[in-house]
Amino acid sequence: MLSAAMRARLTVVLVGARNPSNIGASARAMRDFGFSDLRFVNEYAAPFQAAQLESTKSAVGAEDVMRNARAFDSVADALADCTFSLGTTAIGGRQLSRPILPLTEATQQIITELAGPHSRVALLFGSEKTGLTNEQLSHCQTLVNIPMFAPSDARHLSMNLGQAVAVCLYELSRGGFENSRDLPAVHETQITADTRERLTQFLVEAMNATGYSRRFPANAREHVVRQLAAQLGRSPDEAATWMGFFRQVLRNAKKDAPG
Amino acid sequence: MLSAAMRARLTVVLVGARNPSNIGASARAMRDFGFSDLRFVNEYAAPFQAAQLESTKSAVGAEDVMRNARAFDSVADALADCTFSLGTTAIGGRQLSRPILPLTEATQQIITELAGPHSRVALLFGSEKTGLTNEQLSHCQTLVNIPMFAPSDARHLSMNLGQAVAVCLYELSRGGFENSRDLPAVHETQITADTRERLTQFLVEAMNATGYSRRFPANAREHVVRQLAAQLGRSPDEAATWMGFFRQVLRNAKKDAPG
Repeated sequence: MLSAAMRARLTVVLVGARNPSNIGASARAMRDFGFSDLRFVNEYAAPFQAAQLESTKSAVGAEDVMRNARAFDSVADALADCTFSLGTTAIGGRQLSRPILPLTEATQQIITELAGPHSRVALLFGSEKTGLTNEQLSHCQTLVNIPMFAPSDARHLSMNLGQAVAVCLYELSRGGFENSRDLPAVHETQITADTRERLTQFLVEAMNATGYSRRFPANAREHVVRQLAAQLGRSPDEAATWMGFFRQVLRNAKKDAPG
Repeated sequence: MLSAAMRARLTVVLVGARNPSNIGASARAMRDFGFSDLRFVNEYAAPFQAAQLESTKSAVGAEDVMRNARAFDSVADALADCTFSLGTTAIGGRQLSRPILPLTEATQQIITELAGPHSRVALLFGSEKTGLTNEQLSHCQTLVNIPMFAPSDARHLSMNLGQAVAVCLYELSRGGFENSRDLPAVHETQITADTRERLTQFLVEAMNATGYSRRFPANAREHVVRQLAAQLGRSPDEAATWMGFFRQVLRNAKKDAPG
C-alpha cells in the first residue's frame, strides 16, 4: 500500500505546459489518486494563472491541488529538494544516452524511493507540443515511457498530457493497491537535485578551468556534463568527496592560470 | 500479449457523453493503445457531430477512430453484437445488485473473453455528469471500478471521462506490453572491468597530483576511490570522456608541480 505519507512525497512537475484544461486535468488526476504536490516550470506565467482561473472546469474537485501549486523559473529550481527525478518521454528519433524504462518498471523504482522518509520523487511531464527536451531530461536520473500500441505508420506516439499524468499516477497507485509489503524499509539518505546540480556546476567549472572544455567542446556542453554528474555520489558523503576533489582541481587550475 | 485481432474485438461505448473534447480524448486514448471500435449512445446527435468536427483538436492522430465511430439510439442497440459487456462506475451511494470488480480483475475477464475468436467485448462509460444509470448498467454483465484514493471528505470519486478511458485501455494493454521488447536498447556497450579499473587509477593519480589525497587521505584510500570510480561512465564513450578529463587534470597538475 502506497501510504498517504509516501503519496505526499511525490511531486508532479509540468514543464512548459500551455493548455489550461490539460493542467486542470493533471491536477484532477492527482487528486483522484491521492497526490498533492504540483509544480510548474514555465517561461511565461500566463498558462499557470489561466489554469488557476480555469481550475473550476477541468480540475473540478482538485481546487486544493491547484491552490497549492507552485511555479518555478527553471527545471533545476523546481527539482532542488528532490532526491530522485524521472522524465516521461515518447519514443522517437531522439538520441538518448540512457535506457528508457517502461512505466511498470519505473514505478518500482519510484515506490522503492518513496519508502525513504526523506525522499522526494519528481515525475516530469513536458509540453504538449514538444515533450521534454534533452536539456530538461538531463536533470532526470531515469527516463520513463508509457508503452503504447505502435501501428506501422507510427508517428503520434505521445499521449495527451492530462491522460499521461492519469495513467502514470494510476500505475503508481495500482502497485500500491496490490502488495507493497516486499518493499525494503531502510533507505539511507539520498542526495537532492540541488546537490546534484552543484556537482554539475563544479564539473563544468573544472572542465573549463583545466582547458578540457576548449579541447573537447562537444563533451563539455552543459546537458552532457549534467548526465556525467548524474553518476557522481550515491550519498551526501560521496557527493562531498567529489566536490572536495573538484575544488582542489579548480584551486590547482587557478594557480596555474595565465595572468 | 493482446494481439491486434483481440484489440479489434474490443468496443468502447460512450453513453450520453456531452463534451466534445472528452470524446476526442477518448478516441485518442483508443488510438494510443491500439483500439478502434468506438460507439456512441446519445439522445441527441449534437455532441456526436460536434465531436466529429472537433476531432482534429483533442483527438489528434485519432481521426480514423472518429471517422469510423457509430451512433446508436439505445444501449441495447449499441451492444447488440457484443458477447460480454462491462459498465464502469464510481463507488457512491448507489444501490447495486451486483458486486463491482476493481479494474485489474475486470481486465482479466476481458482478456479471457477477447481470446475467443467470435467474441466482442463492450466497455461502457457514462456521461460526465451522472455516470451510467442503473438502467444502463443493467445491460452489463460486470461492473468495473477504477480504484482511487478516498480522502475523508470523499465526494468526487469519479474520474474525468477521457482520463478514465485512457486508464482502462492502459490497464488492458499493460498485460500485453509487460515485456517491453519494443523499447529501444540504448545501452549497447557496457564498459569492461578493465576500463573501470583504468578509471580508478586515473582518479587515484588525479587525487594525488592535485594534492587532494594529502588533504583528505581517508577519502583517497584506493578501495574508497574504486567505489567512486564505479560510478563513472555507463558507456565506453562516457568512460573516455572521464579519462580525457582526468588526463587534463593531470597535465595541469604536473605543469604546476614543484620541482
